[in-house]
Amino acid sequence: MKQSIKLTVDAVVFGYEAKTETISVLLVKRKYKPFQGKWALPGGFVLQEESLEDAVERELNEETGLQINYLEQLYTFGQPERDPRSRVVSVAYFGLIKPSNFKIAAATDAEDVQWFKTTELPKLSFDHDKILKLAIARLKGKITYEPIGFQLLDNKFPFSDLEKLYTTLLGRTIDRRNFRKKILSLNILDELDEKISRGSGRPANLFKFNKERYFQLKNEGIIFEI
Amino acid sequence: MKQSIKLTVDAVVFGYEAKTETISVLLVKRKYKPFQGKWALPGGFVLQEESLEDAVERELNEETGLQINYLEQLYTFGQPERDPRSRVVSVAYFGLIKPSNFKIAAATDAEDVQWFKTTELPKLSFDHDKILKLAIARLKGKITYEPIGFQLLDNKFPFSDLEKLYTTLLGRTIDRRNFRKKILSLNILDELDEKISRGSGRPANLFKFNKERYFQLKNEGIIFEI
Repeated sequence: MKQSIKLTVDAVVFGYEAKTETISVLLVKRKYKPFQGKWALPGGFVLQEESLEDAVERELNEETGLQINYLEQLYTFGQPERDPRSRVVSVAYFGLIKPSNFKIAAATDAEDVQWFKTTELPKLSFDHDKILKLAIARLKGKITYEPIGFQLLDNKFPFSDLEKLYTTLLGRTIDRRNFRKKILSLNILDELDEKISRGSGRPANLFKFNKERYFQLKNEGIIFEI
Repeated sequence: MKQSIKLTVDAVVFGYEAKTETISVLLVKRKYKPFQGKWALPGGFVLQEESLEDAVERELNEETGLQINYLEQLYTFGQPERDPRSRVVSVAYFGLIKPSNFKIAAATDAEDVQWFKTTELPKLSFDHDKILKLAIARLKGKITYEPIGFQLLDNKFPFSDLEKLYTTLLGRTIDRRNFRKKILSLNILDELDEKISRGSGRPANLFKFNKERYFQLKNEGIIFEI
């Protein structure tokens, strides 16, 4: 069998900051050819004896300093001409974090590492534009059948913060009343006996995720229309 | 870079027959080692210059005689010890067809090819049990946000046939009234001016898929709760 295909992993790490209501993606500037000096998704070659999950976590950590272990497999990109060096097939992973909870630092074959707003992206190397586009679509789809927000919002937050997370990720407005009703019916939030005042509106009740119930629903793959 | 990983593709082809209301999966009996004489998903090594989609369609055709070009990528399996020969990573694809529309015939490295009911499966080779399990879960999930049925049912069919398709795939009962309401509201069916008599019940109206609208919704990724 004359097959000589190399296998890489790439990571699409999205960041969401409630304060600025922006969604960003973590990119590295490539130190070496091909695409030297260009921005790309963090990633690299899978080692002979490591699992794909270990590979993507290791590469992400080596290149950006991020240490996260809950990336999800997105898709495998295998067009024969996608890498100018040779036949390279890449298994892409994605995840969503709160950037201010993590420190980033470029290392190994990354010359620089930065968060880019998804609305202000540079041209990416290889077929990474395509990978990122699919990751965005998958993220939007995912939040319609799986709860999100845990570890993205403050520990205690007004309901409007969760609503903003959804509208930001979806990139569109939602039926607010219906959304509140659906989310509350899932019992993933505990309403606290505390209020918060922001701006000129009346004080809003604070909520907290019910961790147990949240992860139970996440595992079951609940479905709800927004 | 000392990486020496081989890349394969595997196909999970599900079959649905309205008459028997069974869901089955296409398996091949392996002619060569490893797992010689054991059942496995059709699949094989990706050629150096072919895309992953071309590879899985070619392998499926070579081993089973099936010619289909609408398999969807399922997941990539890359545990280091999943193949006793060496490090082999497999990109799995899946699809759903109506078996009686196709002819199957074992060839190349398949000694035999057969449809197996998903309730009466043999032990599979490699990690194919795991691949199949994920494919079943994905299929169940998929039908909750994408219409299915086109080319699986007769050209004209009573609504109960579509209902049976869903209950069979989901493996559970559904709220019939709600289901009918949801499906009809999608406008993917054209109600015909014809009736069919089956058994002792009163004649039922026949429906036909509205192909244009069906594929429009499929591409948009509509979402509905069953």
